[in-house]
Amino acid sequence: MGELPLAAVDRIIRKAGGERVSEDAVQELAGVLEEEGIKICQKARIFSNHAKRKTITAEDIRLAVK
Amino acid sequence: MGELPLAAVDRIIRKAGGERVSEDAVQELAGVLEEEGIKICQKARIFSNHAKRKTITAEDIRLAVK
Repeated sequence: MGELPLAAVDRIIRKAGGERVSEDAVQELAGVLEEEGIKICQKARIFSNHAKRKTITAEDIRLAVK
Repeated sequence: MGELPLAAVDRIIRKAGGERVSEDAVQELAGVLEEEGIKICQKARIFSNHAKRKTITAEDIRLAVK
């Protein structure tokens, strides 16, 4: 946990039209996005292994998100 | 687009066990997470409005993720 800078997550919230946001909401979203990112990568790794590659590519990520 | 620092996204990928990752995979994941974050916040905003609040709380985020 705690890899995504809260300032960056705060900017995303503002992009989504959130004018007033509690600090714990920013932390909550940062945690959710990090967890989601880890899940996507774990899938992407399986796909890269399946393709007999050692490097995860953008294609693996796209497939993992589907 | 482009709010999440790629270095942070790269650390998330490494947490998920990705040792070798192409740069475009990092960019792809950053884009996916930002989009996901925006979608969650748009929902969270609806929930905060529904509760007659102007501030988005962690509870709104949790409900939006469900």
